[in-house]
Amino acid sequence: MKISVAQLNYHIGNFARNKELICNAIKKAKHEKADIIIFSELCIPGYPPLDLLDRLDFIEKCSLTVDEISKDCTGITAIVGSPTLNKNPEGKKLFNSALVLSEGKVIYSTNKALLPTYDIFDEYRYFEPEKNFSAFPFKGLNLAITICEDLWDEQPFDNEFEKKSLYTVSPMEELIKLNPDIIINISASPFSYTKTETKANIFKAKAKKYKIPVISVNQTGANTELIFDGASMIVNKKGEIWRRLPFFIEAIETFSVDDIFSGENAVGDVREEPVKLIHKALVTGIHDYFAKTKFKSCIVGLSGGIDSALCLCLAVEALGNENARALLMPSRYSSEHSVKDAVTLAERLNVKYDILSIEKPFRAFEEDLVPLFQGKEKDITEENLQARIRAALLMAISNKFGSILLNTSNKSEAAVGYGTLYGDMAGGLSVLGDVYKTDIYKLANYINRDKEIIPQNTVNKLPSAELKPGQFDTDSLPEYKILDSILYQYIELQKPAERITGEGIDYEIVLKVIRLINYNEFKRYQAPPVLRISSKSFGDGRRMPLVARY
Amino acid sequence: MKISVAQLNYHIGNFARNKELICNAIKKAKHEKADIIIFSELCIPGYPPLDLLDRLDFIEKCSLTVDEISKDCTGITAIVGSPTLNKNPEGKKLFNSALVLSEGKVIYSTNKALLPTYDIFDEYRYFEPEKNFSAFPFKGLNLAITICEDLWDEQPFDNEFEKKSLYTVSPMEELIKLNPDIIINISASPFSYTKTETKANIFKAKAKKYKIPVISVNQTGANTELIFDGASMIVNKKGEIWRRLPFFIEAIETFSVDDIFSGENAVGDVREEPVKLIHKALVTGIHDYFAKTKFKSCIVGLSGGIDSALCLCLAVEALGNENARALLMPSRYSSEHSVKDAVTLAERLNVKYDILSIEKPFRAFEEDLVPLFQGKEKDITEENLQARIRAALLMAISNKFGSILLNTSNKSEAAVGYGTLYGDMAGGLSVLGDVYKTDIYKLANYINRDKEIIPQNTVNKLPSAELKPGQFDTDSLPEYKILDSILYQYIELQKPAERITGEGIDYEIVLKVIRLINYNEFKRYQAPPVLRISSKSFGDGRRMPLVARY
Repeated sequence: MKISVAQLNYHIGNFARNKELICNAIKKAKHEKADIIIFSELCIPGYPPLDLLDRLDFIEKCSLTVDEISKDCTGITAIVGSPTLNKNPEGKKLFNSALVLSEGKVIYSTNKALLPTYDIFDEYRYFEPEKNFSAFPFKGLNLAITICEDLWDEQPFDNEFEKKSLYTVSPMEELIKLNPDIIINISASPFSYTKTETKANIFKAKAKKYKIPVISVNQTGANTELIFDGASMIVNKKGEIWRRLPFFIEAIETFSVDDIFSGENAVGDVREEPVKLIHKALVTGIHDYFAKTKFKSCIVGLSGGIDSALCLCLAVEALGNENARALLMPSRYSSEHSVKDAVTLAERLNVKYDILSIEKPFRAFEEDLVPLFQGKEKDITEENLQARIRAALLMAISNKFGSILLNTSNKSEAAVGYGTLYGDMAGGLSVLGDVYKTDIYKLANYINRDKEIIPQNTVNKLPSAELKPGQFDTDSLPEYKILDSILYQYIELQKPAERITGEGIDYEIVLKVIRLINYNEFKRYQAPPVLRISSKSFGDGRRMPLVARY
Repeated sequence: MKISVAQLNYHIGNFARNKELICNAIKKAKHEKADIIIFSELCIPGYPPLDLLDRLDFIEKCSLTVDEISKDCTGITAIVGSPTLNKNPEGKKLFNSALVLSEGKVIYSTNKALLPTYDIFDEYRYFEPEKNFSAFPFKGLNLAITICEDLWDEQPFDNEFEKKSLYTVSPMEELIKLNPDIIINISASPFSYTKTETKANIFKAKAKKYKIPVISVNQTGANTELIFDGASMIVNKKGEIWRRLPFFIEAIETFSVDDIFSGENAVGDVREEPVKLIHKALVTGIHDYFAKTKFKSCIVGLSGGIDSALCLCLAVEALGNENARALLMPSRYSSEHSVKDAVTLAERLNVKYDILSIEKPFRAFEEDLVPLFQGKEKDITEENLQARIRAALLMAISNKFGSILLNTSNKSEAAVGYGTLYGDMAGGLSVLGDVYKTDIYKLANYINRDKEIIPQNTVNKLPSAELKPGQFDTDSLPEYKILDSILYQYIELQKPAERITGEGIDYEIVLKVIRLINYNEFKRYQAPPVLRISSKSFGDGRRMPLVARY
């Protein structure tokens, strides 16, 4: 007996495409003489469908697609994920279901019991939790089919305040009573650089505890903020990783059940460098945002600094140099090296670039505003104005050529509000908004690992917004090593101010940074969607009141 | 025996202020010889605290504030709402609790059982649902203390696809077994113009079904998007509204329990005109956003059109004419009446205004872009550029004078993406983003109910963005009566395309409008927070994937 695992890149609501992907995988599995093929959670609509689940017509399309796919399941059985109607008179209208398809029919179904409703997850918004448990008998084996969080009844959180046991039910404690032979877990589990090991540990612990293998099937590819890393795995009954599918790319692989049970020649833990995974995640995130919105080309404002340089490198990897374009917009405050470093990078990447000074529109604005600003000193207003002129120029190119402006802000800046709304905070997608400045350097060095692509001067220079003479980031912010440590402890770990510690960190600086984070919620509210690589990214996973005082 | 009802305007996380409000109300209730005073749901932190609930230090501050308030409860008992720690080893870390305070102690507590997790509500994100029910014995009476949604086990939804019974538990069916004498419901129930009657009906139905009075206590005031209308009410055991506290303002009232039980002289249903309530809601929303962020003054871009005119009128009511400022920014495409109508309005409202032509910066941008745009026709790019120049000017004033730019986009425009990102979509708060254009006219006429404030020409003229010669909204959109009907059926009622019908509505137009709504999710993602007055507003209550195809 053989089992195929299909780790695919679905497109939300694109039923025709998802069906084609699934049916092609079924064809391949048949060719490989698989008895059963396993797809990931909610593969029919793509994950996360969000409030499209509130529309009956959307659910009907899911159901229709399942029916069509079931007709391809001749001589093979398939496990797919789809929302299904809750036929009970009470409760949420839907279940998050695993459906077993064979010979044109749904022959078995089970529903998710544990509905993650934290961070970026909102599953109880849509789904009723299942309270009854059953196993699926298949060719002499008893399969415990679980859906993602169903195996996460015990999990560590970066925020210590969360309980390790987030649920009052443990699906596997119920399922084990039915003597299953294998645990199957279909999931849609997004990447976070701190979670790669945690995920593996969850599966390893379950296999070890219940002494049966675990087959986990994840999706891959990105849907706006969320980047799915695939890395589907089979864990043998000893709790070792026996096989792992690749990170961030589609794969369909077929395994003999006998081999899975024997569990020999386990590949074991594969430790990937975080920087390598983050790099792949970001390239995937850019690529899929464009592919799935049918856009081809991007425009990046290149300042000569490290953030925009890194962003352009990632864009070129994701979209090709022919689909990336750079705009250099020096001002009266730009240093000579800014243009030079930016040109060097654009030429090395073979990316089309233009240089437009912002001087003329800047002067026009200044002159216009003279009567209104009489008696007022120059201040942040004039700095923001320059950033907004640049955004207007970039958006003009975006509009004229049908390209998407990539936002180059990093997480450290976004956290403390060091950026201009409708200025450098503009863009269709924030590529680096979940990457702390200290990690920006690691990624830049990774880009330069074989040869210098990002000019070393760009990497070495002191960060500066260049919006007034002789300005450096450290004029108003602590140095990034200290800042990032405070930010990580406050945002990811959610520590109270008194418990934020470390080299060079004093309480006054902590309080200042926290004040900046809280004060700038209003800016982040209007920021573009951020490619998520951490356990707590700005965006849907972090919902803060704007008018609070704390 | 006497009961006081305290309908107050809390500030999220501002524990000192919330405590002061509560303690002052306790003092007043004591003065009125009340035995017990009832406050609203989560009054200690203010509602909704969102992810501040993920911070242990925040919860500790709640607990400390409860302790302090309990010391003021001498000779009087108080019911307050606060998050409390879930001491069980499993489940979410918090409960959403009602705490009864007396003589320095918490003498009774109960937790919310039904946790709304739909639309703008995310309560299962934070709270464990209570599964055990008890009543609170007080001076010979048995009080069934419920928290908001606990009474909403049966509710009608605008989206017919939702079940009427959203939960598998009915707290009142459990509580009635304990023979309560009164149902108390502490709530934080935001305003929506379609829900005023629904809310009353929920309380009326419970009172009638169980033949005991219901005392409901709501908060008032706005926290960013959410506007709470107060309107706390006592329903007699016959199911009639016996007393109602005012809409949208703070009130503390004391009632004799004997009178409540007799239930005579019921005030009955008070029907308020929706336009009147919406008007109050929006003024409250503006006022509290400024008051709670400590900003005083606003700036509005005045185009001569109806949206910005209405927005300025509401701002003047909320903040005072001395705190409102208008900027008129005509271009080569502006009609003569645009400036004239805008000036008339500003003068009638006695609001400071300036006129700045955008011609100079517009030309500067155009000249700068010549080399890049060679061989390209003029298109939407140049239209967007004008909108972005205006935003840059408005934001310059906002920055220089420390005022907040009010966004004037309406819901119809926001729905179909008829607006420029970083242009007319800019602003700290969207005042009218949940008001359809057809309702904009109703509000304008309501503003003019006693005398003409908004110039009649502004009300009468055909809507135009004036971004190219002879442009009118209807060039690219159906007329607003038809558009708004389609939008309402698609967004609020969530009907499938085939079932969207009405006078002048044909299927092709429906499909075109739906395409526009879906395509423009990316713009709304970056829109300012929207004052919510409907059952489905853009913002946190409507979460749509950006890369979906459907």
